[in-house]
Amino acid sequence: MSTITNVRSILTAPDSVALVIVRVETDDGHGLGCATFTQRPTLVAEAVDQYLAPLLVGRDADRIEDLWQLMYLNAYWRNGPVLNNAISGVDMALWDLKGKLAGMPVYDLLGGRSRNAALVYRHANGRDPDEVLEAVEAHLADGARAVRCQLGGYGGSDPAGPDPTTRALRESLPGAYYSPDQYRRSVVDLFDHVRRHVGTELHLLHDIHERLAPMDAVRLARDLEPHELFFLEDPFPPDQVGWFRTLRHHTITPIAMGELHNHPLEWQPLVTERLIDFVRAHISQLGGITPARKLAALAEAFGVRTAWHGPHDVSPVGHAANLHLDLTASNFGIQEVIGFGAATREVFPGTPEIRDGYMWPSAGPGLGIEIDEEAAARYPVQPSVIGWTQSRWPDGSMWTP
Amino acid sequence: MSTITNVRSILTAPDSVALVIVRVETDDGHGLGCATFTQRPTLVAEAVDQYLAPLLVGRDADRIEDLWQLMYLNAYWRNGPVLNNAISGVDMALWDLKGKLAGMPVYDLLGGRSRNAALVYRHANGRDPDEVLEAVEAHLADGARAVRCQLGGYGGSDPAGPDPTTRALRESLPGAYYSPDQYRRSVVDLFDHVRRHVGTELHLLHDIHERLAPMDAVRLARDLEPHELFFLEDPFPPDQVGWFRTLRHHTITPIAMGELHNHPLEWQPLVTERLIDFVRAHISQLGGITPARKLAALAEAFGVRTAWHGPHDVSPVGHAANLHLDLTASNFGIQEVIGFGAATREVFPGTPEIRDGYMWPSAGPGLGIEIDEEAAARYPVQPSVIGWTQSRWPDGSMWTP
Amino acid sequence: MSTITNVRSILTAPDSVALVIVRVETDDGHGLGCATFTQRPTLVAEAVDQYLAPLLVGRDADRIEDLWQLMYLNAYWRNGPVLNNAISGVDMALWDLKGKLAGMPVYDLLGGRSRNAALVYRHANGRDPDEVLEAVEAHLADGARAVRCQLGGYGGSDPAGPDPTTRALRESLPGAYYSPDQYRRSVVDLFDHVRRHVGTELHLLHDIHERLAPMDAVRLARDLEPHELFFLEDPFPPDQVGWFRTLRHHTITPIAMGELHNHPLEWQPLVTERLIDFVRAHISQLGGITPARKLAALAEAFGVRTAWHGPHDVSPVGHAANLHLDLTASNFGIQEVIGFGAATREVFPGTPEIRDGYMWPSAGPGLGIEIDEEAAARYPVQPSVIGWTQSRWPDGSMWTP
Amino acid sequence: MSTITNVRSILTAPDSVALVIVRVETDDGHGLGCATFTQRPTLVAEAVDQYLAPLLVGRDADRIEDLWQLMYLNAYWRNGPVLNNAISGVDMALWDLKGKLAGMPVYDLLGGRSRNAALVYRHANGRDPDEVLEAVEAHLADGARAVRCQLGGYGGSDPAGPDPTTRALRESLPGAYYSPDQYRRSVVDLFDHVRRHVGTELHLLHDIHERLAPMDAVRLARDLEPHELFFLEDPFPPDQVGWFRTLRHHTITPIAMGELHNHPLEWQPLVTERLIDFVRAHISQLGGITPARKLAALAEAFGVRTAWHGPHDVSPVGHAANLHLDLTASNFGIQEVIGFGAATREVFPGTPEIRDGYMWPSAGPGLGIEIDEEAAARYPVQPSVIGWTQSRWPDGSMWTP
Repeated sequence: MSTITNVRSILTAPDSVALVIVRVETDDGHGLGCATFTQRPTLVAEAVDQYLAPLLVGRDADRIEDLWQLMYLNAYWRNGPVLNNAISGVDMALWDLKGKLAGMPVYDLLGGRSRNAALVYRHANGRDPDEVLEAVEAHLADGARAVRCQLGGYGGSDPAGPDPTTRALRESLPGAYYSPDQYRRSVVDLFDHVRRHVGTELHLLHDIHERLAPMDAVRLARDLEPHELFFLEDPFPPDQVGWFRTLRHHTITPIAMGELHNHPLEWQPLVTERLIDFVRAHISQLGGITPARKLAALAEAFGVRTAWHGPHDVSPVGHAANLHLDLTASNFGIQEVIGFGAATREVFPGTPEIRDGYMWPSAGPGLGIEIDEEAAARYPVQPSVIGWTQSRWPDGSMWTP
Repeated sequence: MSTITNVRSILTAPDSVALVIVRVETDDGHGLGCATFTQRPTLVAEAVDQYLAPLLVGRDADRIEDLWQLMYLNAYWRNGPVLNNAISGVDMALWDLKGKLAGMPVYDLLGGRSRNAALVYRHANGRDPDEVLEAVEAHLADGARAVRCQLGGYGGSDPAGPDPTTRALRESLPGAYYSPDQYRRSVVDLFDHVRRHVGTELHLLHDIHERLAPMDAVRLARDLEPHELFFLEDPFPPDQVGWFRTLRHHTITPIAMGELHNHPLEWQPLVTERLIDFVRAHISQLGGITPARKLAALAEAFGVRTAWHGPHDVSPVGHAANLHLDLTASNFGIQEVIGFGAATREVFPGTPEIRDGYMWPSAGPGLGIEIDEEAAARYPVQPSVIGWTQSRWPDGSMWTP
Repeated sequence: MSTITNVRSILTAPDSVALVIVRVETDDGHGLGCATFTQRPTLVAEAVDQYLAPLLVGRDADRIEDLWQLMYLNAYWRNGPVLNNAISGVDMALWDLKGKLAGMPVYDLLGGRSRNAALVYRHANGRDPDEVLEAVEAHLADGARAVRCQLGGYGGSDPAGPDPTTRALRESLPGAYYSPDQYRRSVVDLFDHVRRHVGTELHLLHDIHERLAPMDAVRLARDLEPHELFFLEDPFPPDQVGWFRTLRHHTITPIAMGELHNHPLEWQPLVTERLIDFVRAHISQLGGITPARKLAALAEAFGVRTAWHGPHDVSPVGHAANLHLDLTASNFGIQEVIGFGAATREVFPGTPEIRDGYMWPSAGPGLGIEIDEEAAARYPVQPSVIGWTQSRWPDGSMWTP
Repeated sequence: MSTITNVRSILTAPDSVALVIVRVETDDGHGLGCATFTQRPTLVAEAVDQYLAPLLVGRDADRIEDLWQLMYLNAYWRNGPVLNNAISGVDMALWDLKGKLAGMPVYDLLGGRSRNAALVYRHANGRDPDEVLEAVEAHLADGARAVRCQLGGYGGSDPAGPDPTTRALRESLPGAYYSPDQYRRSVVDLFDHVRRHVGTELHLLHDIHERLAPMDAVRLARDLEPHELFFLEDPFPPDQVGWFRTLRHHTITPIAMGELHNHPLEWQPLVTERLIDFVRAHISQLGGITPARKLAALAEAFGVRTAWHGPHDVSPVGHAANLHLDLTASNFGIQEVIGFGAATREVFPGTPEIRDGYMWPSAGPGLGIEIDEEAAARYPVQPSVIGWTQSRWPDGSMWTP
């Protein structure tokens, strides 16, 4: 028995991204987990410090499954991004600790490696097709084998000009404006341009980010068929499972879904009805490694592959958790990763390396990663409200996917 | 345009229940909403103060629909009890304010009253059938027309005796122990006893509270058929929608579900497939009046009635919101209410009255309720970890519904 | 990296049951697994020695997932009891080894304990209801909390008398004769008798063992409803998935299925359509711990519990594997175990203990069990052909479930 | 009554392919059957000699149906390649014997010929499209009317170059590497090339051999539509029945599936939902002629045709069984055959002839084929482990179809 003596959150924002880390301490070691909900970081930190810490101190850290269920059910109401991330912080830390106690990387506890490194995809953004192509080519020069291409922000750039009608429509309705029609058409042009220059070998991907009306997403998926995407991501919001049936009916573009998932009813029908090709959960949003490996097993049974969410707002600890799952799962597909800035690497010794289009784990037991708390403290977190999620259509209405 | 000038949370625990209230202030008035997630109250309060307040100040309070979507999408990840309650606090406050500005009760804005008061059901608990019967009779004397009967805590009392096996099984696994078999059988005996004494006229209800294996819940529902329950509540956990089909197939006991709901995929199939008779959402868990009236409309379309959750941990503001929805909805069924303590009534002037088995709204525009902040401050909230949600089966395992 | 240096089978038949054990040796340790297919033991042993050993020697024992897939696919044709058992022997041995290298019980690698011991059910057999009752009472005196009751062999005793018609029907058709109608009715009588004497608290179970025509199995399941079985087992053969829908439609008796499973298409619809309450795989028939824990995860998602097969022809190593899965899975239901004879305990130091109606793991890392090869050699295995699987109906035909 | 006096296996590897033959002897004759599972030949041989022989000796050889059920159920666990092949050896031998006793070819017992010879397809392989075309033209010159075209091994050639990343990825993960993307694109190019040269009359076929991710198999099937394949084979692994629905929805390329089948749940939905056009079982994997003719009858009911598996590792006895089924079944489609080497013809007098694109049965009763045991003994079988089933993707992971 390994007795939990302390559980606490650590907030840090290296390279300007607010990250939440959980440190679990026991009488014989410690572990780290990622609990990052970058839009609401302080809430997760308090969930850990005010509620999970008193619940857990004195309990047996070996019993990860039991503690996961305990944390999941203790607040009575379940799921949701704040509570699931807090649970994830503890869960990953318990797996990290178990690996350290065993003297093994976490991937060995999970069944051992199926591969030595994880194929990754990178991000290429730009204001026009040429800028995107430039970014793609930079990734290619760096060894990338898969690149996600986006024009402007999600939904593309702001369609508004000095048009007085538009001004009246927008009055008192600030937000990130875009035109769904212009966006949809520009994406097809973008892939025409990129594919023409890079040929067929490079894997290309795109993320709709729920910025289209349902049938327009189907249109886009079908219009992109000639470009043979590796996958097309997030065509619909997570509660609109039924539209995936319509989409699947009309197109063979491979589909990925899941970064917004935090409820089993979101992913179960997509997987068991084979409505998607890649399940893309943000694993701290599920509650950590414990539920993610169960989801991977479910997906394996139905021939669906994993492509865990890996944006800037997954900490290096979370990326290590993604990577350890990637290395072990038979049905791994691809791993998203944007890259790690210098400050992030400074705060997190052991951050995985990206090399030749693959992500490689660091040596060492557990998740193989630590946090330099002094360095972390130099990058304090400020709660703030983000703008990019306030997407609006030309008529001024919130796009409510 | 009514410009939001301030949004803040108020924590108070009169009669020992932690409640979260949100106050929205504008240049021309103010409103109150319930944001109570009693197991994690400080997280909701911070969600309001740190994230929703800066998002909302300066915006137009008239545009409730737009603000609701804005709050829902702003954190990118959605749903979940912390964020939905915070949204609810603001949403109810905006409806309260709108009523005050109109000089009308909220039920008038929602379409006007379909009835003058709402049929309620009360709670009768006891350690044995006689104690429960005594409590039922007290409610009858008080005019009650419907009573929910429970033996012991959820799942009944602790089955542990001095048995050494049991001790070994429980080692390092603290929790609220119960025996599902003992519980199931005792409920049938309880209703035999109560029905025999009170006759058939009184509506009786029971709440399984997810404390049985799925097929045992079906068994219980069928065994209770002769007692003609008004409804049987929460047979399965909220992510096990499929089991409702099995249940519905085998029994005609009316079913209620929903206090744990905070995701549309939980209630949509239950309602559209008519797998339940009563939708029982905790409306602050949905995000307030805005989503609750849409859910009521959906349920109406399928002949399903409402029975909003009304425990101690819904504040009087939340009860007022329930009640205004109850009075207007064509498909209202019944309203749960336990009662309001003296301290609660002191803190919340305008708390609805329960009389003759019905709940009656207070006079006045909006939700008709205010908060005495000085009184509220006399009942401070302390974050704490609850025990009753750590239910364990005789073998020591968490019951993980 | 832990390099495999040797893989070999060990055949032993203590207490007259042919068991197959696999020993995997590496440069830094060894592990043991169960590969028992007692009806065809030498085939499994040769599969291990002639095919898996040369495939595996020199490979990295840490990579269990990769080796499992390698073994699964290497023979091109997959599944089936001979090959899956051989794979299981290696798979369990690799998990045992990993636990030893980590200094942890296997249950800790799998996520840690959810309970300290596993509820078991025992077997009570007899020629008439009184004999069965006697056996039940003996188990009760020994602390049992669940007992499976059977009259005679599967399908009950031989219905044949000296009837000359019967003799002519049977000519040259040896087999285990039974009458399905007599069997079905006698089971109902048996449970009337037993339940009357032991009361409602003891869990009772029954195994149809595919000995009825489909609609007669449905009849039996419904006729047994008043006796509230813990579960009714194996109503149909494993390729008759569709009949489970009919069964489920007509009765709420909880259903268990799976000891004959060795193909995912057998269990997937039963689990995902919630047609059964307990999944009962014989885990060496699936290929070991690796697929069994994936199946447990699948079942958990659908509210189905585990009740792994545990007859005499699961070796103590296999029972330890069952038990380690039982202790960790949230959705564990019950564990079958008949008991371990003196010779079996002699050959397998560390055999789990059955006490007070629960099975308890032995101390020690890995699966906590060893084999005394000298003792094992004293109980040699002789290939032989079994009689009880040649069930015939009164007209002389094989019952071909 | 024809009493079985002996049952024994004969192992032989003429032309370097390990074959398993079963000889059943009775008091009035003998018969031969194919039990070839070339990847594990000695296991099948021992299954016959150690378990089926003692089970069968003394029984009545006339009762094929009864003996088939007896063998199928006797080991309790069923199906799987080892046991089914052993059963097949006996089953075919019993049919061969029955034909000899009747003085009739087996096809006459099965209902008589629907045709005089069976249309066959041959194999054309090559390292590039020109080599494949050359092989196709050689078959055309030989009278072939249908040719299966493949580039390199299954999945195409090894994509690895001297790239150091690739080396690091492969470390300690030996296998047959291929790139699914390169493979998929090269097949389309191959058929462009071949079709352009041979015109539309020749039937062309292709076998994916489960070497693609599901949606990529759908892509390939659609991309090959203009080339009007006779059929596209094995798009998915045998346990992924659900993906056939997606495939069928999106393309009209005729689909064949079944060489890996050894469980009714694999083929039943494919046939009854008409998800395939050709059922392609390896009939010894099903258990011989008895189950194969039932499968042919099922397929006939749903308008699905037969295309029994006919690779090198079906012995001439097995080919004769295929052929007798082909000649009698109304719903015969096509028969795969690669050809028979000189050594094979020497060992098996009566091997069917391939002529003018058709296969012709030999004269004589039964299956019309014998084995020269002296010649057979000159080609001993050595158990060995094969490499081509260890397919790996570029990242080093096993492709786990």
